[in-house]
Amino acid sequence: MKPVKIAICGLGTVGGGVFNVLQRNASEIARRAGRPLVVEQVATRHVNPDCDTSSVYVSDDIFAAVANPEIDVIVELIGGYEAAYDLVMQAIAAGKHVVTANKALIAVHGNEIFQAAREAGVVVAFEAGVAGGIPIIKSIREGLTANRIHWVAGIINGTGNFILSSMSEKGSDFNEVLAEAQALGYAEADPTFDVEGIDAAHKLAILSAIAFGVPLSFDKVYTEGISRIEIEDIRQADALGFAIKHLGITRRTEQGLELRVHPTLIPKERLLANVNGVKNAVMVYGDAVGSTLFYGSGAGAEPTASAVIADLVDVARAMETTPESRVPYLAFAHQADDLPVLPMEEIETAYYLRLLAVDRPGVLAKVATVLSDHGISIEAIIQKDTSEGELVPIILMTHRTTEAAMNEVIRQLESLSDIAGGVMRIRVESLDDQ
Amino acid sequence: MKPVKIAICGLGTVGGGVFNVLQRNASEIARRAGRPLVVEQVATRHVNPDCDTSSVYVSDDIFAAVANPEIDVIVELIGGYEAAYDLVMQAIAAGKHVVTANKALIAVHGNEIFQAAREAGVVVAFEAGVAGGIPIIKSIREGLTANRIHWVAGIINGTGNFILSSMSEKGSDFNEVLAEAQALGYAEADPTFDVEGIDAAHKLAILSAIAFGVPLSFDKVYTEGISRIEIEDIRQADALGFAIKHLGITRRTEQGLELRVHPTLIPKERLLANVNGVKNAVMVYGDAVGSTLFYGSGAGAEPTASAVIADLVDVARAMETTPESRVPYLAFAHQADDLPVLPMEEIETAYYLRLLAVDRPGVLAKVATVLSDHGISIEAIIQKDTSEGELVPIILMTHRTTEAAMNEVIRQLESLSDIAGGVMRIRVESLDDQ
Repeated sequence: MKPVKIAICGLGTVGGGVFNVLQRNASEIARRAGRPLVVEQVATRHVNPDCDTSSVYVSDDIFAAVANPEIDVIVELIGGYEAAYDLVMQAIAAGKHVVTANKALIAVHGNEIFQAAREAGVVVAFEAGVAGGIPIIKSIREGLTANRIHWVAGIINGTGNFILSSMSEKGSDFNEVLAEAQALGYAEADPTFDVEGIDAAHKLAILSAIAFGVPLSFDKVYTEGISRIEIEDIRQADALGFAIKHLGITRRTEQGLELRVHPTLIPKERLLANVNGVKNAVMVYGDAVGSTLFYGSGAGAEPTASAVIADLVDVARAMETTPESRVPYLAFAHQADDLPVLPMEEIETAYYLRLLAVDRPGVLAKVATVLSDHGISIEAIIQKDTSEGELVPIILMTHRTTEAAMNEVIRQLESLSDIAGGVMRIRVESLDDQ
Repeated sequence: MKPVKIAICGLGTVGGGVFNVLQRNASEIARRAGRPLVVEQVATRHVNPDCDTSSVYVSDDIFAAVANPEIDVIVELIGGYEAAYDLVMQAIAAGKHVVTANKALIAVHGNEIFQAAREAGVVVAFEAGVAGGIPIIKSIREGLTANRIHWVAGIINGTGNFILSSMSEKGSDFNEVLAEAQALGYAEADPTFDVEGIDAAHKLAILSAIAFGVPLSFDKVYTEGISRIEIEDIRQADALGFAIKHLGITRRTEQGLELRVHPTLIPKERLLANVNGVKNAVMVYGDAVGSTLFYGSGAGAEPTASAVIADLVDVARAMETTPESRVPYLAFAHQADDLPVLPMEEIETAYYLRLLAVDRPGVLAKVATVLSDHGISIEAIIQKDTSEGELVPIILMTHRTTEAAMNEVIRQLESLSDIAGGVMRIRVESLDDQ
C-alpha cells in the first residue's frame, strides 16, 4: 500500500524522538502498519543536532506543511496554545489528519477541535498527551470498550511523583527535593505547572472525557498541588499504612462526575502506591473488568514518540476506512449524556487531618466533638508524645464525609483556642474494587 | 450503521459473561463501536441460568451458526481442541470473523488458523486468551507498535500467583495453599495445567509471537512449574530482597528468542513483585518506551467478557475496511525474520541455589570452587547456623551464566559427598531497564 506522508512540526525533544524512532524502527513499523510511514517534511526553527534531516525537506514555516497537498498527517509538536491551535485548525480545514502530544491544547480547545475534525472527516489523535508512552487512551477507549467505567485514578505527572517519592525515600523536605528535581532536569525552573497540578488537570480532563464520553471540562477540575505536603505528613501516613501520591481522580456517581487533582493517601498495598520516581501509572475501574493498572514512562523524547507513532499507525489504518466509520472511533464523537461535573463541596472522601494542639486535658475530646457534631465518624485519632509545654500533634483519620462538612469542621477546629495554626487536610482514597 | 450480528458458541462461565455484558452495556458499547452489537444466536448444550436468552435463537448445534448467512462473527467459547478447531476453521471458510478466548487452540493451531484467516480475508481475534481482561495483545500490537520489543515478562496464570503469594503471606507450604485454592475455586481438582505452567506456556507462546512477529512456537517453550517451591525458598528469597513469581519470559537476543516459563526471583521493588493473589500483570520492554506494565484480572466471567467484547468492537471496525487493510493488523500477518527459539541450555540468567551440606570445615570452599571452576561469579553465599551435627543449608546467588554451565555445576555439587540430596535451583531476573 501507499506510504503515509507525514510532516513533523516542531523538532525539539519530542519531535526529535519521533523523527529518530520512525527512522530506526522503520521496517518494523511498516510491517505492523501494513504500509511505510515516511517523514516528508519538517518544520522547525532550530535544527535538532540529534536528527539527520539531510533527506527531508526542512523549513521554519509550520504552515507550509498544511499547504503541501502531498502531506497526509500533520504531527503538531510545537506546544503552547496560539500557534498550535492555528496549525491544528488549519490542518483540519485542509483535510489532513492530526497527531499531537499537546495536552494543554486538547484540554482547553479540544471540544472545538474535535467538532471541526468530525465535520471534516479527519482524525485528531493525542495518545502522547496523557501519560507519555503508556497507551492509556487506546486502552480505555478500545481495550476496555465493553465496560461502564466507574472511575479512573492516576499518577499523571512524573515531576510530582518524583518529588513525593524522593521525600518519602530520603526523608527530605519539599524544597530540598524540588531543587534536586530541577538539577536532574525533572522539574522546570518555574515548577508551578507541575507541582501545583495544572499539568495533571489537563491530562485528567482528557481521561475523564474519554472514560465517560463527556465533553472536556478542564475549567471544572478541582486542582490542588503538593507544595504544602510536609515530610511529617508522609511519615504519619506511612505509619498508618498509607503512601501519599498526587492523583488525578475522575469518578462517575449518580449525581454527576468527580474531577479532581490533589495529594491523596492511598493504602500501601495498592500497586499505585508502589509507583515511584518519574514514572506514571493509571488505574481504571470498569464494571466488567474490575481494577486494571497501566504503568510506564510519562515523559521523555522516546516514550512520548512511542505514543505519537502509535497514533500515526492508527491514522494509517483509519485512512483505509470511510470518514463515517473512522471518526466516531478516533475522535470524541459519540458522547453520552452530558453528566454535570460536581462541585468539590459535594464530593465525599475519607480524610487525614493533622493539627497542633496545646497540651491540655480535654483537647482531644473537644476535637472529637467538633467531628461528631457534623456526623463524621473517626477511624483513628493519634496524639503524639512531646516534651512538656510543647504543642502536641494530633492525627485524625475520618470515615467518608462531604468536602462541605469537612470545610466546616476545619473552620471550627481552627477557631478553637486550643488549636495552633491551620489544619492540614489530605484526602484518603481506598481505590478498592468498586 | 447496520448492527453486527453475533453468534455465541458456548454459554458457560465466559459465554454467559459475554452475553450479559453485551446486554447490560449495550448502549455504551454501540456508542463506542459506532453500531449496535447484537447476539442473534446462541449454541449451548446447557442453558445458563444466569442468562435471559428468551429473545435469542438457542440451539445445541454450534455449526448451525456457521451455516446462518446472517451471522457476521462467531464467538468461540466452547474450549478444548477438536470441536473448537472445527468450528473456527469452518467459520473462516464461511467468511465469518472469529473471536475466541481459547489460548490452547491458538497456541497449538494458531499458525494454521491465521493462515486460513489471511486467505479468507477475515479477522481472528483472541485478546481474551492472554491475561483475561488486560488489553495486552492490543497494547503490544497497537499501543507499543513503534517499538522494537526487547522482552516481555508476565504473571499470566492467576492460580499459580495466588499459590505463591499465599505461601509468602501466610508461611504455608505448597500443598496447604493448593488445597485452599481448590476450595476457593481458583484451582482445578487436577491442578497440573496451572501449577506446572502449561497454561502459562500457551499464553507466553502467543505473547512472543505478537511481540516479535514470529510464528507460534508453543512446542518450544521451556516449562517448569511451581510445585517444588518450598516455603524455605520464599523465606530465603525475601531475606535477600526478592519475591518468587511464576513468570513467562520471552526475550529477543542476538542469537534468537528466549521462551520460558519458570519460577523466578525478582527484586521486591519491581512492581511485578507486588502483584498478588489471582491477578495477572505483564511487563513489556520496548526500545522507545522503556518498561511498561499492564495489570488486571486474568480470569473470571466478566473480565474475560471485557476482552471478548473489545475484540468484537475491533471486528466491527474491521468490517468497514477492505480485507487487504484489515488482515495485516488483526491477524498475525506481517512476520519478521523467523528468529530461532534458543534451547534452554544456551540461555543466560543469574541463579539462586539452595543446598544442604554436612557441617564440616571446608564445605563452603568446595562449593565455591565448583562454581569458580566453571567461571561463575558468586554474588552472595550464605551459610545458616544450625544445631551441631545437623545438615547446614547453604544459599548461593550467582552472577549471570548459561543454563548449560549451571546444569554441570549442579551435577558436580550433587556428586560431592558433603552435599545431601538435590540442589534447588531458581532463576533470577532483574527486569531492569534494558
